[in-house]
Amino acid sequence: MEKVVIIGSGNVATSLAHGLAARCEVVQIYSRQLPHAQALADAINCPLATDDLLALVPDADAYIVAVRDDVIADVVAAVPDNGALWLHTSGSKGIDLFKGHRAHYGVLWPMQSFSREMVVALDDVHFFAEASDEATLAHLMALGSMLSRHVIEADSDKRRRLHVASVFSCNFANHMWSLADEVLSEAELPFGALLPLIRTTVDKLDRLSPAQSQTGPAIRHDNQVIESHLAMLDGDKREIYRLLSDSIMNRNPLDDNAK
Amino acid sequence: MEKVVIIGSGNVATSLAHGLAARCEVVQIYSRQLPHAQALADAINCPLATDDLLALVPDADAYIVAVRDDVIADVVAAVPDNGALWLHTSGSKGIDLFKGHRAHYGVLWPMQSFSREMVVALDDVHFFAEASDEATLAHLMALGSMLSRHVIEADSDKRRRLHVASVFSCNFANHMWSLADEVLSEAELPFGALLPLIRTTVDKLDRLSPAQSQTGPAIRHDNQVIESHLAMLDGDKREIYRLLSDSIMNRNPLDDNAK
Repeated sequence: MEKVVIIGSGNVATSLAHGLAARCEVVQIYSRQLPHAQALADAINCPLATDDLLALVPDADAYIVAVRDDVIADVVAAVPDNGALWLHTSGSKGIDLFKGHRAHYGVLWPMQSFSREMVVALDDVHFFAEASDEATLAHLMALGSMLSRHVIEADSDKRRRLHVASVFSCNFANHMWSLADEVLSEAELPFGALLPLIRTTVDKLDRLSPAQSQTGPAIRHDNQVIESHLAMLDGDKREIYRLLSDSIMNRNPLDDNAK
Repeated sequence: MEKVVIIGSGNVATSLAHGLAARCEVVQIYSRQLPHAQALADAINCPLATDDLLALVPDADAYIVAVRDDVIADVVAAVPDNGALWLHTSGSKGIDLFKGHRAHYGVLWPMQSFSREMVVALDDVHFFAEASDEATLAHLMALGSMLSRHVIEADSDKRRRLHVASVFSCNFANHMWSLADEVLSEAELPFGALLPLIRTTVDKLDRLSPAQSQTGPAIRHDNQVIESHLAMLDGDKREIYRLLSDSIMNRNPLDDNAK
């Protein structure tokens, strides 16, 4: 059975650990903070937790580095190569940060939004894979297939684009909902009233491209409504409303259609 | 049976016409463009279509003005009062534009995103109602109940806030998906790969507030990733990425949590 070490205990590491625990042997969890490593290890019945990179077990088949993007290279540099498969899970970091440090390496990026509060089922998540060589790619794809039905080869450039697109689609769309929540909270209106609207907006994407399904005052060039909304907003909400309305208007020159 | 005239043939008018046709008698459709009025009338088996406001039938029980926000007042001014219930369907226009022109009037705003390409089922849409007097409110609520199970009284201020919140939640979130589509198209990657991610992001809102479920490089203050994304973007996508990242960072001061 495949033996895996998970380096990290954050949002991504948590869902990967739960996903892998059912299909292979997770032998150790590392975190800079031992209680975090121990909590995740306990949650998936993994026998070892550590906060010492030099105490990693040497004989695992794969080492998954699921830590903040800006410390991946530090982790790799701190541990000598043991000939196993080493991979990171970042959508924005390249594969080259392993070069010269590892013989067999790769990237396995789950294009999904994770939060520590909720373990995400990974079966339908798209994983994008890249590896140092063909044999390692096969190993990486096999590991990915334990987690999801969608494991797709993608080089760093495609992965970067997918990551930027996911930031817009998920992080920034979610921030729009946070800003809406702020607007409603001021009048003690519940955010939940927006959920049917949000769901319908998403459902449209099954049939129409987002550009085709765009609605609202900006695409209608309805400046009266836009100005009245701007007058109700302050701080960065006003600036964001203005910039996004302009962005929509610029992509949709005025015609004389009615609402 | 309630007799209704629908003034307008656009996105909102189309879904309202289909929703009402099953429950009451839609006796006439008006549009500035006769072929549009005729097409919608034909679609719901309504006997009359017109492009002449002075040719509206005089004996309907309710007149629904579902036209561009900035021409509602023109429509109201162009037609003399006949004592029936007159209402508009705008989230941002007040009730006062009927004052002095009508005896019985109101607003019935469906908080939903409409497009002409797709008739929206209205049963779960939240409608917000306001009327000139108690008897008219009862009439308006009864009319709304023919369309939806969620008809809620809300004054103009609450309605304006709901409308602004819906612009953020729906129009601007959808624009984020358009921008993601642009980023992927440049590398011939399909937008559909993002749909599982988008659905999970929405599903989280059933359990967490949007602020609680925020993820991504901005909330992690991951400036390396943010800068690498900015370097890949141009035009207003770069400006939007910067502004929204700052907006998320400002609401989430840095701490030392790992990813």
